[in-house]
Amino acid sequence: MSPRVLTTAAELRAATIELLGSSRRHPSSLGLVPTMGALHEGHAALARAAREENDVVVATIFVNPLQFGDPADLDRYPRTLEADVQLLGGCGVDLVFAPPQEEVYAGGAPLVRLSAGRLGEKFEGEFRPGHFDGMLTVVAKLLHLAWPAADASYRAYFGQKDAQQLALIRRMVSDLNFTAEIRAVPTVRSAEGLALSSRNRFLSEEEARAALVLSRALRLLAGRASRCEPLDLDSAVALVECEPLVELEYFEVVDPDTLEPLAFNCSLTPFSGEGLALIAARVGSVRLIDNQPLKADPAGARG
Amino acid sequence: MSPRVLTTAAELRAATIELLGSSRRHPSSLGLVPTMGALHEGHAALARAAREENDVVVATIFVNPLQFGDPADLDRYPRTLEADVQLLGGCGVDLVFAPPQEEVYAGGAPLVRLSAGRLGEKFEGEFRPGHFDGMLTVVAKLLHLAWPAADASYRAYFGQKDAQQLALIRRMVSDLNFTAEIRAVPTVRSAEGLALSSRNRFLSEEEARAALVLSRALRLLAGRASRCEPLDLDSAVALVECEPLVELEYFEVVDPDTLEPLAFNCSLTPFSGEGLALIAARVGSVRLIDNQPLKADPAGARG
Repeated sequence: MSPRVLTTAAELRAATIELLGSSRRHPSSLGLVPTMGALHEGHAALARAAREENDVVVATIFVNPLQFGDPADLDRYPRTLEADVQLLGGCGVDLVFAPPQEEVYAGGAPLVRLSAGRLGEKFEGEFRPGHFDGMLTVVAKLLHLAWPAADASYRAYFGQKDAQQLALIRRMVSDLNFTAEIRAVPTVRSAEGLALSSRNRFLSEEEARAALVLSRALRLLAGRASRCEPLDLDSAVALVECEPLVELEYFEVVDPDTLEPLAFNCSLTPFSGEGLALIAARVGSVRLIDNQPLKADPAGARG
Repeated sequence: MSPRVLTTAAELRAATIELLGSSRRHPSSLGLVPTMGALHEGHAALARAAREENDVVVATIFVNPLQFGDPADLDRYPRTLEADVQLLGGCGVDLVFAPPQEEVYAGGAPLVRLSAGRLGEKFEGEFRPGHFDGMLTVVAKLLHLAWPAADASYRAYFGQKDAQQLALIRRMVSDLNFTAEIRAVPTVRSAEGLALSSRNRFLSEEEARAALVLSRALRLLAGRASRCEPLDLDSAVALVECEPLVELEYFEVVDPDTLEPLAFNCSLTPFSGEGLALIAARVGSVRLIDNQPLKADPAGARG
C-alpha cells in the first residue's frame, strides 16, 4: 500500500492526530524515521524496525541545507522521491512527510539553533564545520512536528552507520528532555561488506572495490576485541593505507557515548569492555564513513 | 486551593496526562507559566492569564544556573517556595513543578544547547554573555517536559517586562517548530511606575525612588510616539542621566521582533508605526531593565 505523502506541517499534524486517534491500542505509539531521501536498504531497516514497534509510522524526506557546508555537495545530493515513497510503502510506513524547503524554514534561516558543543567538533565535525549544529536543528524541528499525544510512546529511528550523529541525537534528547526514545538500527552492508550509503552511487567500480578495505579493517578490530586481544590499531591503519585509492582521514577507537578516545589505541593492552571504532576516508571524490561497535567476549576468548 | 507540587519529570508527566484526560473539554488546552520563583504580582498576572485561557495550568519554579553568568548573582537570587506556591494557588494554578537541580540537569551540564545567535548578543546579551543561550535551553526543556496531547492547545506565558527574552522565545518557537503559542502579558508596575522585579527587594528606599526615572523616561517616549511626534531620544536619555544614583547602560528604540535599531532614534522624524523602547541601568548594586512598546496613534494625534 502506498503511504500518504504530506508536504505541510499542518497536514502532518492533522494526519498524525487522526491516525493516533483511530489506533486500536491506547495509549498508542508513534515511530519517526527521519531521512534525507535517496533511500536504500539501510533506510528500509529503519522503517521496518519502526513498523514492528509502533502503531503509527511517519517517515520524513527532507534534504536539509543547514547541514551541508558545501553548496555543491547539497546540489548533487540525489533526489529520488518517487522511488523513496515506493520503498517506504513496501515497509508499511503510514505517512511520508516530504516538505519543500519553504515549509521547514518558513521564517528564513533560523536565528535560534541547536548547538552540538564539543561533541560536534571532533571527527566528522572537524571535516564538516557546522554540520552537526544543522543536523540537530532539523532533527529537533522534525521531533517537534511529529510529536504525538502526551501519553503515547514516541520513538525515533537512526542508523548505527552515522555513529557520531547517533551519539549527538541521544545527547540532545537527554540534555533537552525530548520525550522521544532514540532507537539505533545496525548498519546494513553489501554482500562484500561496504556500508550502504546514498553516496556509494558516486563510486566507480574500482573505487567501490578499494573502499572494501574500510569494513575489512573494522572487522579485524572487531575480531581482536571480541577475543580480548590488543587491538593493535596501527596494523589496521597500515592495512587501509596500503590501498592507493583510499585516503584515510581518521581511524580511532572511542567511548561509544562520549566519543572520547579509549586507551586501547596503539597499545599492547588486551581489549576489555566496549568501544567504538570510527573510520573516515576519501575514495576518489567521495567521502565515506563507517564504524564498528567493539565488545570483548571473555567467554569466547577462553573457548 | 493549594496546587499539587511535583519535583520529578515523571510525576509532572503523569499528573499532566491525568488532568488533561479528566478535562471536560476535548481537545483540551494546557497553559505553562515558567518562572524562577520569588514571585510577585507580575507573575500572578501570567498565572491568571493562563488560568483564564486553559483547562490545565502548570507553573514551574526553577532557578536555572545556566542563565547566570555570575555565581554570586545565582546565590543571592531569592528562594521563597512556600509563598510562591501560595500565590500560585490563589491564581488557580493546577500543578507546580519545582524540581531540584539534579532533576533538570540529570546528565550534568548539557553538552547540546540552544544557541540564541545574534539576537542574543545585543542589549542584555552584551552585559550577560551566555545568558540567553542558557535561558532558551531551559525554556526548551520545560516546554518539552510539559508538552500535552498532540491535539491539545499549548500556550506558554511570559512577561513583556523581559522584552528580549520574549523576542528570543518567540523566535525559538518559530525557528524550531515548537507547537506552543507564546502569550505575552503586559508589565505590572508599582503605583509609582516601577516595573515589578524580583531584584527590586535589593533596592534601598532612596534607590527605589531614583529608579522611577526609568519608567518616567519610557512614558515620555510613549506619549510622543502616540502623538506621532519625534521621539527625541536624547532628551529622554538626558532625563535619566540627571539622576545621580542611576547609571544608564543602554536606552534605545528598536523593532519589537528583530530588536534592530529604528531610524527614529535621535532624529527629528515624526514617529509612525510601532517600536519598542529598551532601557537598562544600574541603581546601586542592582541591575534593572524596563521597556515600553511604542505605538503611533494618528487619530489621537489629530484630536
